[in-house]
Amino acid sequence: MDIESLPLRDDLVGEEPYGAPQIVVPTVLNVNENPYPPSEAVAREMAEAVVAAATTLNRYPDREATALRQDLAAYLGHGLSVDNIWVANGSNEIMLHLLTAFGGPGRTVLTFAPTYSMYPEYARNTLTKFVAYPRREDFSVDAGLVLGAIDIHEPTVILLARPNNPTGTGIPLEAIDQICRQTEAIVVVDEAYQEFSAEPSAISLLDQHPRLVVSRTMSKAFALAGGRVGYMAADPAIVDACRIVRLPYHLSAQTQAVARVALRHADELLAKVAELAAEARAFEDWARGRGYDVVPSQANFSLFGRFRDRHAVWQGLLDRGVLIRETGPDGYLRASAGTPEEMQALKDALDDMNPEKES
Amino acid sequence: MDIESLPLRDDLVGEEPYGAPQIVVPTVLNVNENPYPPSEAVAREMAEAVVAAATTLNRYPDREATALRQDLAAYLGHGLSVDNIWVANGSNEIMLHLLTAFGGPGRTVLTFAPTYSMYPEYARNTLTKFVAYPRREDFSVDAGLVLGAIDIHEPTVILLARPNNPTGTGIPLEAIDQICRQTEAIVVVDEAYQEFSAEPSAISLLDQHPRLVVSRTMSKAFALAGGRVGYMAADPAIVDACRIVRLPYHLSAQTQAVARVALRHADELLAKVAELAAEARAFEDWARGRGYDVVPSQANFSLFGRFRDRHAVWQGLLDRGVLIRETGPDGYLRASAGTPEEMQALKDALDDMNPEKES
Repeated sequence: MDIESLPLRDDLVGEEPYGAPQIVVPTVLNVNENPYPPSEAVAREMAEAVVAAATTLNRYPDREATALRQDLAAYLGHGLSVDNIWVANGSNEIMLHLLTAFGGPGRTVLTFAPTYSMYPEYARNTLTKFVAYPRREDFSVDAGLVLGAIDIHEPTVILLARPNNPTGTGIPLEAIDQICRQTEAIVVVDEAYQEFSAEPSAISLLDQHPRLVVSRTMSKAFALAGGRVGYMAADPAIVDACRIVRLPYHLSAQTQAVARVALRHADELLAKVAELAAEARAFEDWARGRGYDVVPSQANFSLFGRFRDRHAVWQGLLDRGVLIRETGPDGYLRASAGTPEEMQALKDALDDMNPEKES
Repeated sequence: MDIESLPLRDDLVGEEPYGAPQIVVPTVLNVNENPYPPSEAVAREMAEAVVAAATTLNRYPDREATALRQDLAAYLGHGLSVDNIWVANGSNEIMLHLLTAFGGPGRTVLTFAPTYSMYPEYARNTLTKFVAYPRREDFSVDAGLVLGAIDIHEPTVILLARPNNPTGTGIPLEAIDQICRQTEAIVVVDEAYQEFSAEPSAISLLDQHPRLVVSRTMSKAFALAGGRVGYMAADPAIVDACRIVRLPYHLSAQTQAVARVALRHADELLAKVAELAAEARAFEDWARGRGYDVVPSQANFSLFGRFRDRHAVWQGLLDRGVLIRETGPDGYLRASAGTPEEMQALKDALDDMNPEKES
């Protein structure tokens, strides 16, 4: 049967499943993963936690994930408690809950392009109008830009990636503060890459702004992309709104167990954060030295170009065993920070190709 | 902050998070869990699988969950292959994917009440109009009833629980066949409790009906409620539709690993299925003998009554350490099949109370 013959929702016709290619090559720098797996000791402790969970796996998991949310509150600090925390299968699902609760037909979610390519998917799935307002020419956003866009589009939800993906651009804390002071919208600051940034977290603003949400993930800094744990900090009323729309028992017993072990070993898992940020910054210095245009990044990835034919460069790197990401503004490519060896492989492949740049 | 002050989607205002009470008592028979946990050996093997998965937990999981879907296809048989299978965090999420793909504003999902109390939540979250057409007086549905309701409500999706929850009522395979022959709607047969039933699965009809979907779960027969693994079998085009709307990497590496171990030990985990069905049937015989009205069930639970004040009976049982479920048609309560000791506790508590019945 052809998918065209099915009664697919009209706006889904012709859509493709989202996702970067999952290709097996020596150097994988395409989805901003942390290249360092958990240590043998942490893996063992995760296994022990799963054994413990498995002895009651015939029972539904804690629907409220209370212990995990307590651990996340303790990790974040700032006086947050379990009632301020929501947790789900990746920050993907956090965003789905937020847009199901606060979006929907007749409502707008406002974000600032170029930005994370999943945002339109969350809006589409929840039938929320998606507006991607252009960033400044240097990919920054400031309070003036955001407030101007709010005036025009009257969003119910604003999504601000901080640092932004794929550009790595930060947003000053003062700008977030000023935006929150002047809007009634739910302001979601997506801090998926916050641990890699030198800027303070927007979590410090939560007690002044009850409609501010700070979203996080364990995928990147915690090196737990396979574990699928995203979370957010917000006013308890916003957590309650997510609880209304979540499907019950959304977080499995084994996921709760694995995440709690990771949090117990936050020091070990986060130990590579500074090193990875340094790798990205060193690559950017190198790239500038080679004449590439490099966007200033606060994350564990680098956006660089500009290539006359970025697809050819992406393919050429892949042919040399290096997978990066064809995403973001025209002419640019994004590379995740890897191990020193992986970064060398990327640099060697680029030098080998010496691709044509646009001025 | 009050939730009322937030810009919640209009139709969510006043809604409560779905879920049965999670109360710690000696005898828990309220959510149709399997009372038998995985054996120590299976738990150990799950842990070993998680250790293996943990060594690459810094990487995203297989977005397509291909190996798990292959295992599920092999378990279901009937010549199904990986392209016929979709898998998610509970059949909850399977339903969410189906209604996101085929529901939405201006579309109707048709089901037959009384039925599973989560169905309206899936419809609400996906903004699909929810119609619960009344079952026959004995809680059965037949092709005539369903086709009549289709004529009236013109659904895009039909949800048929088989056996039905909370009544345990089956639907003859011939009725499913006849319904599928006469509708263009997507017919979702929810076989969450199929393994407990003596009726053949609707999977045998898949090759004749490309718009038929058979949904399953590992929560019940596989004793894996905590694992959160639901799946479905359907034409590959319907799987592709789900792939469009799923959030990428929806199924964690540890969940894929745990589910695969459970499937390798299907024989052991499913060994209690016949015993649990027999426990439910024996309880029903006992209850009939005590003068209760008992709905004929094909599942691992029993619906019985009718009580003048079912809430008082539910509370009285809880006071005696037995938690069952206050759900379904007026005057009835639902009890899951437990161990022989748990069933005895339920019977003793009922005899102790000797609650007033309606004729």
